[in-house]
Amino acid sequence: MKREEALKIVKEQLTDHRYQHTLGVMETAIALAKQYGADEKNAELAAIFHDYAKFRPQDEMRQIILSQKFPQDLLEYHAELWHAPAGAYLVEKEAGILDKEILDAIRYHTSGRPGMTLLEKVIYLADYIEPGRHFPGVDEVRALAKQDLDTALIQAVKNTIQFLMKKNHPVYPESFQTYNDLVMED
Amino acid sequence: MKREEALKIVKEQLTDHRYQHTLGVMETAIALAKQYGADEKNAELAAIFHDYAKFRPQDEMRQIILSQKFPQDLLEYHAELWHAPAGAYLVEKEAGILDKEILDAIRYHTSGRPGMTLLEKVIYLADYIEPGRHFPGVDEVRALAKQDLDTALIQAVKNTIQFLMKKNHPVYPESFQTYNDLVMED
Repeated sequence: MKREEALKIVKEQLTDHRYQHTLGVMETAIALAKQYGADEKNAELAAIFHDYAKFRPQDEMRQIILSQKFPQDLLEYHAELWHAPAGAYLVEKEAGILDKEILDAIRYHTSGRPGMTLLEKVIYLADYIEPGRHFPGVDEVRALAKQDLDTALIQAVKNTIQFLMKKNHPVYPESFQTYNDLVMED
Repeated sequence: MKREEALKIVKEQLTDHRYQHTLGVMETAIALAKQYGADEKNAELAAIFHDYAKFRPQDEMRQIILSQKFPQDLLEYHAELWHAPAGAYLVEKEAGILDKEILDAIRYHTSGRPGMTLLEKVIYLADYIEPGRHFPGVDEVRALAKQDLDTALIQAVKNTIQFLMKKNHPVYPESFQTYNDLVMED
């Protein structure tokens, strides 16, 4: 699918603000793919579609997680996690993206997972550091991303976990496992 | 078992420094037990014996974990975790402590676990805040312990996880689960 067609499809699903974020993720993902040797076209498409389900009703996302036998413990944790697996499902069904690598990069862009692929790492990180992001620690991760993909990713995952822990929010176990997996293989 | 007999047994197992720490944990655990309604005698004995295995050879602790079918993933994480379950085993076998509540308080004093008992919480926290402890954040947890056991425990578990994450060390999954369990029921 061409960039223009993909952008046209997601634009209808997103707010203007979220569409601008998506363009930032797209540019950043392509740059990271180029730098670290991931497939640039896959990075482009995964980035464009990563937030496809962001504004779907929670009930619809819950139903998808239930009916598709996605990990059911997702439903015990913050609904913010749901748009990623629900998005992978809807992007396949509604936009006709069939590439499993792209769909997995969408599926794991919020939680991460142990054993992330190169493309999954690129999308997770691009989502975290795209130019529209402004929060404590993001500049440090941007700087790390110029030097080493895994080091930057570890810092992004740590920041995310620590942000949740500061607020005494639960942390989805797969995010913890992602952290352990990255530091144990590093 | 009387305090004097228990102290005599552990003194032989510990360095002077660690024995002084044990006395601090004992006093703190008794005070917390009194404050929060745990069994004071059980708190005393669990505290006295909590570090019983601290200076056993790593090979001996590894063999205990293997042969007793303790969670085998302990062996993939920091050896610092091993003295707790190995200690529960040795305290039963060598010191003749048979009370399951006391043994579990020893077993989970380093990792924590989801669904911690009152006594387990008292020992975990006493080990963290006894007067001989000096590290960043300990005074905050001491102050919280005067007000609410779970709030103090959550902060202690968080500090421990964040300390490990700052150094990019793996975190034993049961410690993460302990955090989630505490904030989800809080």
